[in-house]
Amino acid sequence: MRGQGQVRIIGIDPGLRRTGWGVIESDGVRLAYVASGCITSTADEDLAYRLRELFEGLTSVIAAWGAAEAAVEETFVNDNARATLKLGQARGMALLAPAMRGLRIAEYSPNLIKKSVVGAGHAEKQQVQAMIGFLLPKARFESADEADALAIAICHASHRGAAALARRVSEGAAE
Amino acid sequence: MRGQGQVRIIGIDPGLRRTGWGVIESDGVRLAYVASGCITSTADEDLAYRLRELFEGLTSVIAAWGAAEAAVEETFVNDNARATLKLGQARGMALLAPAMRGLRIAEYSPNLIKKSVVGAGHAEKQQVQAMIGFLLPKARFESADEADALAIAICHASHRGAAALARRVSEGAAE
Repeated sequence: MRGQGQVRIIGIDPGLRRTGWGVIESDGVRLAYVASGCITSTADEDLAYRLRELFEGLTSVIAAWGAAEAAVEETFVNDNARATLKLGQARGMALLAPAMRGLRIAEYSPNLIKKSVVGAGHAEKQQVQAMIGFLLPKARFESADEADALAIAICHASHRGAAALARRVSEGAAE
Repeated sequence: MRGQGQVRIIGIDPGLRRTGWGVIESDGVRLAYVASGCITSTADEDLAYRLRELFEGLTSVIAAWGAAEAAVEETFVNDNARATLKLGQARGMALLAPAMRGLRIAEYSPNLIKKSVVGAGHAEKQQVQAMIGFLLPKARFESADEADALAIAICHASHRGAAALARRVSEGAAE
């Protein structure tokens, strides 16, 4: 049973080939690993049906682990327009899945995610993974996509409090 | 009642602010206008929930008009990575809506769409709209997005026969 003030957060690292996900639990102070994994799409399937595979997988995961809030990485906008378009399509799917289930959804830049986990915006992948192991000792992840998704969830856990406070203040001010 | 060999095609012109759609009926030779419109998203809503508004609107339209096949424009990949990403996200949504309902989905380049409707790949918007009026005399559209969506549907109507034939031939060869 989850205590009062506890929330389950799903971090999502969208990709057309592989979409990583990681669920953690936060009580505002402590974090705990819940589950993580990677959803893959069939490479020789049509684009629309690959997006459907990922969407259905993600929808099942959100329901199965009872995530109430979602965090998605703000895709890096690089010079390769074709890659950006592909990532954009996967990202549309990754935002839609939690929105269809009514979750609160936040987006974070790659630098803010690294900074939240490691303390520096330009950390190496190994440093990020080592810190995930430290912050979530029970975490078991087999791929970089899962680790990235857990890092996104950790970032949200440390920023959601401030966002909720700002919202309460502005709601209070409006009364 | 629809006769044998008749199919309803929905053309979709995806965009985060406005997603145009147009449904036509084809019996392989003749085309007929069925309906068209534009789904808008709430500008000050979060991205994920804007995508949800568009997805739900498009899903309703597909069901309401009994579309069995969908055609989506291949987004123009330009030099503005931020715009490409935004369009990619809307495009992911626009492919997912018909995929969730099991429609056959085709994608066409802007040039092929213009060529199918006007006969030239570099036609002006006015020429495209004039030809839509000629091919679909009953068409009523209020926006460029609706007209573009109808053009995409017309393009699919003239290419789906060839695609179906190629599939039958290859399936026959596999027996």
